[in-house]
Amino acid sequence: MKNIESLNKHTLGIIGLGLIGGSIAKSLRYKGFTSKIIGVEASEKHAAEALEAKLVDEITNINECVSRATIICIAIPVQATLTIAAEILNLISADKVVFDVGSTKSSLCSLIEVHQKGNQFVATHPMWGTEFSGPSAALHNAFEGRACVICNKEQVSVDALEIIENLYSVLGMHLLYMNAIEHDVHAAYVSHISHITSFALANTVLEKEKEENTIFELAAGGFESTVRLAKSNPAMWAPIFMQNRENVLDVLNEHIAQLKKFKACLEKENMDYLWELMEKANEIKRILK
Amino acid sequence: MKNIESLNKHTLGIIGLGLIGGSIAKSLRYKGFTSKIIGVEASEKHAAEALEAKLVDEITNINECVSRATIICIAIPVQATLTIAAEILNLISADKVVFDVGSTKSSLCSLIEVHQKGNQFVATHPMWGTEFSGPSAALHNAFEGRACVICNKEQVSVDALEIIENLYSVLGMHLLYMNAIEHDVHAAYVSHISHITSFALANTVLEKEKEENTIFELAAGGFESTVRLAKSNPAMWAPIFMQNRENVLDVLNEHIAQLKKFKACLEKENMDYLWELMEKANEIKRILK
Repeated sequence: MKNIESLNKHTLGIIGLGLIGGSIAKSLRYKGFTSKIIGVEASEKHAAEALEAKLVDEITNINECVSRATIICIAIPVQATLTIAAEILNLISADKVVFDVGSTKSSLCSLIEVHQKGNQFVATHPMWGTEFSGPSAALHNAFEGRACVICNKEQVSVDALEIIENLYSVLGMHLLYMNAIEHDVHAAYVSHISHITSFALANTVLEKEKEENTIFELAAGGFESTVRLAKSNPAMWAPIFMQNRENVLDVLNEHIAQLKKFKACLEKENMDYLWELMEKANEIKRILK
Repeated sequence: MKNIESLNKHTLGIIGLGLIGGSIAKSLRYKGFTSKIIGVEASEKHAAEALEAKLVDEITNINECVSRATIICIAIPVQATLTIAAEILNLISADKVVFDVGSTKSSLCSLIEVHQKGNQFVATHPMWGTEFSGPSAALHNAFEGRACVICNKEQVSVDALEIIENLYSVLGMHLLYMNAIEHDVHAAYVSHISHITSFALANTVLEKEKEENTIFELAAGGFESTVRLAKSNPAMWAPIFMQNRENVLDVLNEHIAQLKKFKACLEKENMDYLWELMEKANEIKRILK
């Protein structure tokens, strides 16, 4: 209770009112958590939608947002985050806290580490998302029950860390701590590769299956869930893949090798090995119920 | 109503009480559709579960099932279906109808086509399934609102076709008609390839990510939906892939080629082409809302 009361004094600034920034605004407002939310949004359409939906109380520019907000959230594509994070750290006074919510962490943490006000920046990755984008896709209970990763917490001041830990507790998230390099390896395995396979699967089927009505009618056969992520926004995902390219390439090579094993089984009509590969894949049941 | 009344006189025999056979039993019973359901099931465990859950009224052997049932459903793996279909056609009298529910149709239809009682056999593919298996996974509303494909209907007698069309209407399915060869091509694109990519993705991540707790904690990042099908039963899927191997190989080759395009983008840091590939994949939104 103490924590929520103290956070209620804060004015929240959110840079980027897409799915994640919008959902943070909506969820924190829903929890009755902050007195005022100021947004910064480059797209006029998204800015208007965010105001209309009362996600934010007002839209302003970065300078004004940074001067008035006490907690600043950066929720824009990861490449742009690098530039904006440095710009904001240069501007802020000592009583403010900045955090980001991006899906890659190594480059950002390297930048923060050498900035003189880097201990006011918390690098986080709340593990939630959908295939939809923009403020109209924002949900008020988006993060509930999910994990949030905080990277390189030893770089952050005790006060700044506590404020952001409290914010995520209020969102109903449980916290995991990792170093940024380790985070990016794991994110490549359990998130980034799924997006690549899904984009590639959509292109495969769009290439091969010219009868679109048939796709639609028959999609119940598993296609819909494996291809869901192919609806994701390139503006968000292209920079993630590029920034985490070494890890993504490593796991993508492994994935192509695994697909080639299935291919070899079919070419050689090797039923035993095919069965073995599938039984091995079934082990995922042990981990994901 | 006429149709349901006439079907109520039928005794239904189901060969194979797994997810699909069990769900057909459960759904038809739920709809108050048939007076008696007789099951045949090789697994003692599944047979006991099906009796316990009242999916069937009794368990018997194939000969007795075929002599007493008026409609016989074959719901076993597609390779075994070939043998059992021929066996049942050899046994049945002229007043009976047989149908199957398998995910491949060409080999089966070739077999039926040359059988003297082949016009009593309806080759169908109800487009529904989950990653779970066995009679305990059966649902009473499994097929509602989904499509069911009927193949090579010109091979079937008018009466037999009408009975099975009615049965699927009662299950709430809408019917599509295709020839078997065309069906197997489409099924490879919109169902079989999704299962292969999902199995291969599970093996990729199990190979690379040794920290299982991390997979579990971070899986919200899209992994869970793309890997869901990797929980599917090899006993069902290995014969499907093998029976439809030429079509599956064709689409698998295309899929590997599509993944290699993503790989090339990352290797060459070609952001423009990466973006283009993802925008193209986004077109799937046009087809799947």
